[in-house]
Amino acid sequence: MFSKVLVANRGEIAVRIIRSLKELKIKTVAIYSTEDRDSLHVHLADQAICVGGPHPKDSYLNMKNILAAALLTGAQAIHPGFGFLAENSQFVELCEMCGLTFIGPRSETIELMGNKANARIEMQKHQIPVIPGSKGFLTDATEAKRVAKQVGYPVLLKAAAGGGGKGIRRVDDEAHLEKAFDEAKREAKASFGDERMYLEKIMEDVKHIEMQIFRDLAGHTVYFPERDCSLQRNKQKMLEESPSDLLSPKERKTLGELAVRAAEALDYRNTGTLEFLMDEQHRFYFMEMNTRLQVEHTVTEMVTGVDLVKAQVKVAFGEDLPFTQKDIKVSGTAIECRINAEDPLCDFAPSVGQVDYLYFPVGNLGMRIDSDLYVGAKISPYYDSMIAKVIVLGKDRAEALEKLKRALDELVISGVKTNQAFHKALLEDATFLAGKAKTDHVEKVLLPRFKKNVN
Amino acid sequence: MFSKVLVANRGEIAVRIIRSLKELKIKTVAIYSTEDRDSLHVHLADQAICVGGPHPKDSYLNMKNILAAALLTGAQAIHPGFGFLAENSQFVELCEMCGLTFIGPRSETIELMGNKANARIEMQKHQIPVIPGSKGFLTDATEAKRVAKQVGYPVLLKAAAGGGGKGIRRVDDEAHLEKAFDEAKREAKASFGDERMYLEKIMEDVKHIEMQIFRDLAGHTVYFPERDCSLQRNKQKMLEESPSDLLSPKERKTLGELAVRAAEALDYRNTGTLEFLMDEQHRFYFMEMNTRLQVEHTVTEMVTGVDLVKAQVKVAFGEDLPFTQKDIKVSGTAIECRINAEDPLCDFAPSVGQVDYLYFPVGNLGMRIDSDLYVGAKISPYYDSMIAKVIVLGKDRAEALEKLKRALDELVISGVKTNQAFHKALLEDATFLAGKAKTDHVEKVLLPRFKKNVN
Repeated sequence: MFSKVLVANRGEIAVRIIRSLKELKIKTVAIYSTEDRDSLHVHLADQAICVGGPHPKDSYLNMKNILAAALLTGAQAIHPGFGFLAENSQFVELCEMCGLTFIGPRSETIELMGNKANARIEMQKHQIPVIPGSKGFLTDATEAKRVAKQVGYPVLLKAAAGGGGKGIRRVDDEAHLEKAFDEAKREAKASFGDERMYLEKIMEDVKHIEMQIFRDLAGHTVYFPERDCSLQRNKQKMLEESPSDLLSPKERKTLGELAVRAAEALDYRNTGTLEFLMDEQHRFYFMEMNTRLQVEHTVTEMVTGVDLVKAQVKVAFGEDLPFTQKDIKVSGTAIECRINAEDPLCDFAPSVGQVDYLYFPVGNLGMRIDSDLYVGAKISPYYDSMIAKVIVLGKDRAEALEKLKRALDELVISGVKTNQAFHKALLEDATFLAGKAKTDHVEKVLLPRFKKNVN
Repeated sequence: MFSKVLVANRGEIAVRIIRSLKELKIKTVAIYSTEDRDSLHVHLADQAICVGGPHPKDSYLNMKNILAAALLTGAQAIHPGFGFLAENSQFVELCEMCGLTFIGPRSETIELMGNKANARIEMQKHQIPVIPGSKGFLTDATEAKRVAKQVGYPVLLKAAAGGGGKGIRRVDDEAHLEKAFDEAKREAKASFGDERMYLEKIMEDVKHIEMQIFRDLAGHTVYFPERDCSLQRNKQKMLEESPSDLLSPKERKTLGELAVRAAEALDYRNTGTLEFLMDEQHRFYFMEMNTRLQVEHTVTEMVTGVDLVKAQVKVAFGEDLPFTQKDIKVSGTAIECRINAEDPLCDFAPSVGQVDYLYFPVGNLGMRIDSDLYVGAKISPYYDSMIAKVIVLGKDRAEALEKLKRALDELVISGVKTNQAFHKALLEDATFLAGKAKTDHVEKVLLPRFKKNVN
């Protein structure tokens, strides 16, 4: 097994990974920015190396410094966590060139699936159902019109090389399509030097259901119970659960086998997640694949008892998966709720400051809090606002909800504003409690109601 | 179901019970002494009533005030936790007289098993193996000599009504028996007005193994996987685990069925634990029965996923046990380590003070900390020194040990002295790590070594 691993991340996920590495008796190297010198992951790791200034591009995205830190400390592998360099295929190549094992998929897979247009085409190739839309790229506005008519409005025109909202247009009817197509195409060419466009139907009244898979170098592949991540604000997940009460065991198996088929077709390595939209008729439509560990992997760990980070490390080292499909049993229901340093009363503006009081309600069965907070910890403006994940496991969804309610009642984080009150309001919402919240529920129903109640 | 329950206890166990009651949507009433007005259990409960002064006899043992608090608040049942009134048969009778459900066994059972001599006789009646010694009571020193010779020295002479170390003598050879017998008998008569004596062999080189049972009013009975509680100092458990790596599934079943037989013979209600000594040949000898929830019930919860307090409440209300024997599956190994406010460098003298910093390492899978600590909490001299229970669950004992090591490395409790360093030393001990520590291991090997290393 590796004797030393560098964790190329910060915050709760760096802490979470370091903890699993320690339990595997692997020495840990943390990296940090000058802003993070007192962060928990720095305190917990066996060694810690400063890789640059506060801005991510200077530190957590600074490939040269991170690779140097790994080589300098004699680390044999790098765990990227999520965000930062986790889905950067160039970084994976550089790791290989330095003789370092990247704990994740091959660079080719990351590159292929990182381009959402190519990922869509690739999945269609393997008969994985995708969101209705164009097959491949659109040649011109006329073809776009034809496809849009076929799948039905509203549609989304997207640049193949898209990102950051550039080269993307929502179109509600045919009258507006041509202009939007031309604009988006021009924008795409200007922004990315690539004017290829594709089109997807905008799916309404759908749930976000995702399937995590795991595959070792020998080709053993398993899937995990699905996660329902429909509670979102600004396309950011807020609360996730596993399994979904809506899916039958048969549907779970079908979707799982579909995901396994995709993983095999991609010759996938390590873990990844296929994200689907599910409509009222329980039809699934592939959206995208995340070629990394996800924030919400914790709910999967809680219901299966599998430590996914430990499995990642073992598989990256070349070991067989430490479990087979039949070992993956679902016990109860787990729910994760993301606590962000942000002000729900002020349009969720990020909140910064120093934690001056903290109470984590950690007793009793089925309560887990993944966080890098401690009394005195600094919440910085430079990084993601997620500061804690409250994860509960109940024997069923009803018990999990009661546990989550209790946890949110007891939790105290003082010194920064958080979205705790919004999560508590969510736990009073009948649609969510019934398991029927769709991807637009937060923005369409909960946010307006929350604002009204507060004012 | 009950709509309101009073928790007649304090500290971590009151907090733990209140949390389960909340998840059952039952309103909670806390009681507290004037010393405990800012304790966590007071903050968490829906209602809290002061029942007297700091001394336990004035508050947590003040039956009249506790019963009045229950009646005043409209509580329908009382959960006694452990310690204080949990094994007081008179309190159970008073509850009944007040129309309150006592969440625990019948008063007759508590009384019978509370007298260790009668418990021993009762178990012998049902062919449960007991520690070798007298059958019933000893008539005189001559009979004591005969029995001692038969079972082998050293032996313990014990007053039937014994308690607090009165009427008890260790005898290492025949020459000293008669004098010891007469002294102990006189002492017993003077202390308890009851001169009945019995004799037990002092078992050396044994493990403490215990079996928890659960029985509902309809007579359904189950046993849980055994706990190994051999790590003790001054007859106080320090660290417990479940299951024991030493027992085969067949031995587990045999011992479990023995415990179930005892529970049935006693017409037992609710949960209780039979404590055994186990010798090198894996022969079991009944020591005593605890007719209550125990401190170490948490390890059982972790390996089985069963919330024992919720089950206690349901069964006390008259519901059937929410599980059958075949539902009780063992997943992995759990270990609990008791953090006490005491100074291991000063002969474990109790330490008091105010918590001024606290860090609980709560992330990742299989980590649970039951505690009533918070930053600002006061550790009082009036009560038990146990302030936190660190409980880990690993897929096997080796992983659980790694988790416990990590937890103890990360844990910070500042403001009072604790036995944390002693627990960390324990985790370096080869005999313990091999699962071979006997009941005398802490005092014979670990304490002397710890003292030597520190000096």
